[in-house]
Amino acid sequence: MLKRVGKQVIKFEKPPIISSYSSIVGKKEGEGPLADTFDTCSKDNTFGKKTWEKAESQMQKQAYSTALQKSDILGNEIDFIFAGDLLNQCTSSAFAHRESNIPYFGLYGACSTMAEGLVLSAMMLDGGFAQNVACIASSHFCSAERQYRFPLEYGGQRTPSSQWTVTGSGAIILTNKKETGIKVTNSLVGKIVDLGITDQSNMGSAMAPAAYSSFAQYFKDTNTSPSDYDLIATGDLGFVGAEIFKSLLLKDQIDISKNYVDCGILIFDREKQDVHAGGSGCGCSAAVLCSYILNNMQNGTFKKVLFAGTGALLSPTSVLQGESIAGICHIACLEI
Amino acid sequence: MLKRVGKQVIKFEKPPIISSYSSIVGKKEGEGPLADTFDTCSKDNTFGKKTWEKAESQMQKQAYSTALQKSDILGNEIDFIFAGDLLNQCTSSAFAHRESNIPYFGLYGACSTMAEGLVLSAMMLDGGFAQNVACIASSHFCSAERQYRFPLEYGGQRTPSSQWTVTGSGAIILTNKKETGIKVTNSLVGKIVDLGITDQSNMGSAMAPAAYSSFAQYFKDTNTSPSDYDLIATGDLGFVGAEIFKSLLLKDQIDISKNYVDCGILIFDREKQDVHAGGSGCGCSAAVLCSYILNNMQNGTFKKVLFAGTGALLSPTSVLQGESIAGICHIACLEI
Repeated sequence: MLKRVGKQVIKFEKPPIISSYSSIVGKKEGEGPLADTFDTCSKDNTFGKKTWEKAESQMQKQAYSTALQKSDILGNEIDFIFAGDLLNQCTSSAFAHRESNIPYFGLYGACSTMAEGLVLSAMMLDGGFAQNVACIASSHFCSAERQYRFPLEYGGQRTPSSQWTVTGSGAIILTNKKETGIKVTNSLVGKIVDLGITDQSNMGSAMAPAAYSSFAQYFKDTNTSPSDYDLIATGDLGFVGAEIFKSLLLKDQIDISKNYVDCGILIFDREKQDVHAGGSGCGCSAAVLCSYILNNMQNGTFKKVLFAGTGALLSPTSVLQGESIAGICHIACLEI
Repeated sequence: MLKRVGKQVIKFEKPPIISSYSSIVGKKEGEGPLADTFDTCSKDNTFGKKTWEKAESQMQKQAYSTALQKSDILGNEIDFIFAGDLLNQCTSSAFAHRESNIPYFGLYGACSTMAEGLVLSAMMLDGGFAQNVACIASSHFCSAERQYRFPLEYGGQRTPSSQWTVTGSGAIILTNKKETGIKVTNSLVGKIVDLGITDQSNMGSAMAPAAYSSFAQYFKDTNTSPSDYDLIATGDLGFVGAEIFKSLLLKDQIDISKNYVDCGILIFDREKQDVHAGGSGCGCSAAVLCSYILNNMQNGTFKKVLFAGTGALLSPTSVLQGESIAGICHIACLEI
């Protein structure tokens, strides 16, 4: 029997439970509107390390160890780690977990990584391949700026549609050994959608059509509408992409404006923090999921949430070669 | 019920079947000892494209479409694609599949990517989440040299322990709708192992301890020995890494020398092709699996094969920052 609803939605037979989660962010994120919801707001963006890349790895390691500490599951009881980040060859993740002694799957989904990991983790558990799985993602403003744009020291000016890469990481421990808690009930794995956007400073626009494609299919497959959810969160379309996403759905008579948020919009104060189109990066949706969203599910504010990771599939080289930016969007339905 | 044997080996209840597979390689690989086994040996390493990166993407796209053509499964019957490569942000894979209209999982496992995809694909099928899954990996000598080492035009000299990145791609279509054929019966997901090798021209040595760790655990968990298999293949330790791998196992009284091969050793003629320590790259093990190995399983020469992907988790930046090279090794058991 195929565990499906409609064409593209995977339905879990025994929905995996989120055993624990944790978030860690940098200084700027710790000065933003969600400051109180994160486990750790570091005042030191180097995390005690000598390079930004090592700092990001250390941050991701800490997100994972904090999630473990908050759980009653021991480190050696984790069956698999799914992890990813934005750095070339995903080294933040590999180095963060090289001492973990846990079977490891490296992912690359750009900013959709946390959702990709969440979906795969839930499949591992529901499929009977694991009892406890961890998924983690991270990004760091300074390592991302150097790699994708310019070294910070250049002081390059940013375009209005550009997003600010979040320094942050989120980690989730999922289990099939518990009966109660926040469940991953179903998921949609996204297709790659590329409508030809070539401006790497406008990734929200490049990802919005992928988000539209996944959500339109999701609502159709599950025969639900936005009002069936307490919160619908994308991460991270930012101010520009979120508007396009909403208007694309509206053309299909789907109005999500009432309960829709974007992690990249939530994490910074647009007026005070000079982030232009909002936050982005694997760490943005990961950290916001593992703080604001899951906290509000645990305290009963939200009972049914759609969490979607949106990724812009490009590289500095592909942009220089005139390639357009492909987008992808994975959705996980969380219920308590 | 956890689908396990021993500590780390996953046992599939209904082993997924390899419905079809295909391989495509470049000019040098088409002049090597396995030339007759590949589906396509291109004489043009640009694959008709203007940049090496676009060439790699085109090659991967072709590997996938050829595998589909060789199968009786239609393109729109594929439930998921798992794909990965070595390029920054894995753009070869994303761009290869952006027009496929199939739900997509991006992976990063360095040269272990094909094995990582194979293991995850098998889990998707056995877990009941899909009926047909594709996994694909690629690498290209010219895109890899520019990114990891020097542009080809520099004519940089290579060290004796360095490996030659294969221009190649392999694609496999797996299904749970067939009863007979080559099966994936069990798998081991590797842990990251880092013994402190820092020489990026000696990746075989960096990966050998990870291969040792995975195989020692695999033989223990399955209570089998090398003689239970017709072939044990790693991809790609090369000449240097393979010797270290064999000697590490020998310390545990495990002698694999009788039926052991390495894809990086098989694909080139060491005497005539000047490849120093042998082939490497995601495309090496992918192309050798999807030609020599699977062909010889289909014709009955090999009935039980262990295929292992070994990955070196590093980046040019991590090397410059003095980080050591972490290794990983995933194993899939194939039977007919």
